[in-house]
Amino acid sequence: MNSHTPGSDPSLQDAPKAGAAPGRPQVVIVGCGFGGIEAVRALSEADVEITLIDRTNHHLFQPLLYQVATAGLSAPAISGPIRHILRHEMQRGNLTVLLGEVTGIDVAARRVTLDGNKEQIAYDHLIVAAGATHSYFGHDDWAAHAPGLKTLADAFRIRRRVLLAFERAERQANLERRKACLTFAVVGAGPTGVEMAGMLAEIAHHTLPDEYRRIDSRRARVVLVEGGPRVLGGFTDALSAKALAQLHALGVEVLTDAKVTNIDAEGLDYDGPQGPQRIPTHTVVWAAGVAASPLGRALAGSSGCTLDRAGRVAVEADLALPGHPEISVIGDLAAAMSHPRRGDPTPVPGVSPAAKQMGRTAAQNLLRRLRGEPTRAFRYLDYGALATIGRHSAIAMVDVPVIGRVQFSGVMAWLFWLFVHIYFLIGFRNRLVVLSDWAWAYFSFERQARVVADPENPPAAIASAIPSTPTPPGP
Amino acid sequence: MNSHTPGSDPSLQDAPKAGAAPGRPQVVIVGCGFGGIEAVRALSEADVEITLIDRTNHHLFQPLLYQVATAGLSAPAISGPIRHILRHEMQRGNLTVLLGEVTGIDVAARRVTLDGNKEQIAYDHLIVAAGATHSYFGHDDWAAHAPGLKTLADAFRIRRRVLLAFERAERQANLERRKACLTFAVVGAGPTGVEMAGMLAEIAHHTLPDEYRRIDSRRARVVLVEGGPRVLGGFTDALSAKALAQLHALGVEVLTDAKVTNIDAEGLDYDGPQGPQRIPTHTVVWAAGVAASPLGRALAGSSGCTLDRAGRVAVEADLALPGHPEISVIGDLAAAMSHPRRGDPTPVPGVSPAAKQMGRTAAQNLLRRLRGEPTRAFRYLDYGALATIGRHSAIAMVDVPVIGRVQFSGVMAWLFWLFVHIYFLIGFRNRLVVLSDWAWAYFSFERQARVVADPENPPAAIASAIPSTPTPPGP
Repeated sequence: MNSHTPGSDPSLQDAPKAGAAPGRPQVVIVGCGFGGIEAVRALSEADVEITLIDRTNHHLFQPLLYQVATAGLSAPAISGPIRHILRHEMQRGNLTVLLGEVTGIDVAARRVTLDGNKEQIAYDHLIVAAGATHSYFGHDDWAAHAPGLKTLADAFRIRRRVLLAFERAERQANLERRKACLTFAVVGAGPTGVEMAGMLAEIAHHTLPDEYRRIDSRRARVVLVEGGPRVLGGFTDALSAKALAQLHALGVEVLTDAKVTNIDAEGLDYDGPQGPQRIPTHTVVWAAGVAASPLGRALAGSSGCTLDRAGRVAVEADLALPGHPEISVIGDLAAAMSHPRRGDPTPVPGVSPAAKQMGRTAAQNLLRRLRGEPTRAFRYLDYGALATIGRHSAIAMVDVPVIGRVQFSGVMAWLFWLFVHIYFLIGFRNRLVVLSDWAWAYFSFERQARVVADPENPPAAIASAIPSTPTPPGP
Repeated sequence: MNSHTPGSDPSLQDAPKAGAAPGRPQVVIVGCGFGGIEAVRALSEADVEITLIDRTNHHLFQPLLYQVATAGLSAPAISGPIRHILRHEMQRGNLTVLLGEVTGIDVAARRVTLDGNKEQIAYDHLIVAAGATHSYFGHDDWAAHAPGLKTLADAFRIRRRVLLAFERAERQANLERRKACLTFAVVGAGPTGVEMAGMLAEIAHHTLPDEYRRIDSRRARVVLVEGGPRVLGGFTDALSAKALAQLHALGVEVLTDAKVTNIDAEGLDYDGPQGPQRIPTHTVVWAAGVAASPLGRALAGSSGCTLDRAGRVAVEADLALPGHPEISVIGDLAAAMSHPRRGDPTPVPGVSPAAKQMGRTAAQNLLRRLRGEPTRAFRYLDYGALATIGRHSAIAMVDVPVIGRVQFSGVMAWLFWLFVHIYFLIGFRNRLVVLSDWAWAYFSFERQARVVADPENPPAAIASAIPSTPTPPGP
């Protein structure tokens, strides 16, 4: 086993920039999502030694991941290499970035384990920002048929399935089977599900027509299956109704109060107001359940902390792990409460602004602890919520100072959505790329990233999965 | 088994655009590279029914594939969906595009088999443009350690290995092993090998410095291993010498007369002027051998035609398969001769302009045959050759009318290379994207596509392959 304090390994002394001061407090941050990156930034000028660990080499702008899945944007447009994003912080000389997967946390020995015991890294302070993954509510066998949307790999998987579904339909002679190829189901009508369904309808109705010979892509069916009584349940009734009308205008079928009971390679079963029904389809996108990273369980096993039903770690008011002030848990992995100046604490939603704010608070509390000051409770500043539904329509609830909460929808909300997403994208270059890609897509109806390149699943393997129909031999 | 003449299946009659006239000659084109796409275009206004079959959904601009492998461009920038590229041809109503792999050709029954007997398609005329793949000269076990560069999946594989090599080096405490992580070998000093080596040196020396803490990426070693006596053997001695000087200026080690004898996970062995040597490295790129598509063997088995050593089909002067005037073989799969107005026939090189010209000739000969006219021999118009070596340097041999062959190198050749590659890129939009990406990369030294997103090979699996060093346990 290979164990060392980061930066202090004697065999590293040839490394020209290894300026680690062994006396400094060692801060380990797990995960480079919105929370992790914000924590690094807030600590980079402090007299601490930071080690940031992530499973991938990039930070991902998850709010636009559905655009990669629907071939509207390329992966590099919404992601950036962690080392490049943090290059200025890196030049201060106290940040080490490691590509690796944290597989265990030993809170008693104050160490994290990388890649299943290959390497251990000691910490004085730990910030866990490992995020969330999909939850199939105990039906993990659905995962193979209904990929979720959390990583770039997920997005590529969905892009491939969507594009190949039209190709399969073009080669499918049996009418029923062709219909199933041209049916797309999205499970869950939160912002991601609504955005996916809207984009799928746009692809079928505007991007692909006239590019096929035997099928009419406009006949494709896009079904949005929601277990609750309305779409975008996090918004007000009025905005939810507007979103529903916009989805209908795009040609999306919306099923509410419909609980999915089974998903297999040939279709999806649900129990709705009309009793049990089945949708024959080969393309299902899962946008319904979220579960915290398995690192929550690792923390619970090591510290005895409690997890909520989604596997999130219940944290103290200051985001610390109960009984372990040296550990903070933030972002989607934390079941945190917001402590407003007036009124009762409220649960913090799993959105990117909340993760960023938690990253900042955790870093500041860490510095307060180092200075011997008391930590502060986390307070979430809710700026509102946004969801977009296809071309130039969206809904928005925004908190405006003095005026209070403002609701709006339609083109104005869409322009606002556009502005906000461009503004918060990582890096000036990505903003330019996404702006120009969107301008092109808007005026041409084209989607530029309609390319399937997957080494592990050659098209032959997929095409041969098409059920063949026995017809008389040809001429 | 499912067998039908394309477009004439009775169960397809609901297809709104199925305007196939069963009496028309059925032309099947296999492969949508430079040759296949040109053949489709040349036939699209003729009174024939065309079926284009490709294993992927995209046409790829292979001359820039090394830029995807070295994270300079995103995949959609150098590729386009076949259906979109051919949308105007498609609107003429005689073109069907199918995603599928042709696995057999029955020249007696005039049928091609898709996806291992799943479906058969009958033809009256067949154009086979299935291209080439890598050849490891009988050492297929090297493929796992030294990926070649023919498809987008290949490019992603190389991109992942190169970027993760630096990450492994950052986590590697053992000095020797770290050195091996920071050594990159490129086998074969043709244009692709030279371009790859130049780009790898640029990444190590200009893009990555200051982004790592424990390693200095400028210390990375890039070795170009060539079996012949000089780099870019297809160019003149003078240009080859210029290219060598440019490679040295970039910091590339060039080994000539060095025959690779073994490649494994830990390094590369070669036999050179100094006898047998070994380069410890985990990142080898194969740019040496090319073998024709396995469809050549299928054709030989069915028609008895002969293949050359690289597996290419020896064709008649008019590109027809000997004894089968209804079949043409073009592009990298054909061992074709050019028949100039004066002088003896010369072999046609495996370059994209040759593939395009063969596509046009095969289509025109097909139409001549339909009109009962004699076919014409293929004549290759050689416009010259180009190769680029890192930032603003390249070499060029160009045929200028009246003046004849002109040689030049340096910045002028690089600007010419730039112009030619932008000009021939598929689609106006890709031209804009690549131009802006290059402008950004040139001035910022950044490479925008440095993102590793591979579902099948999560970083954990790669990281855990790093040999761990037994060091005493940490604090």
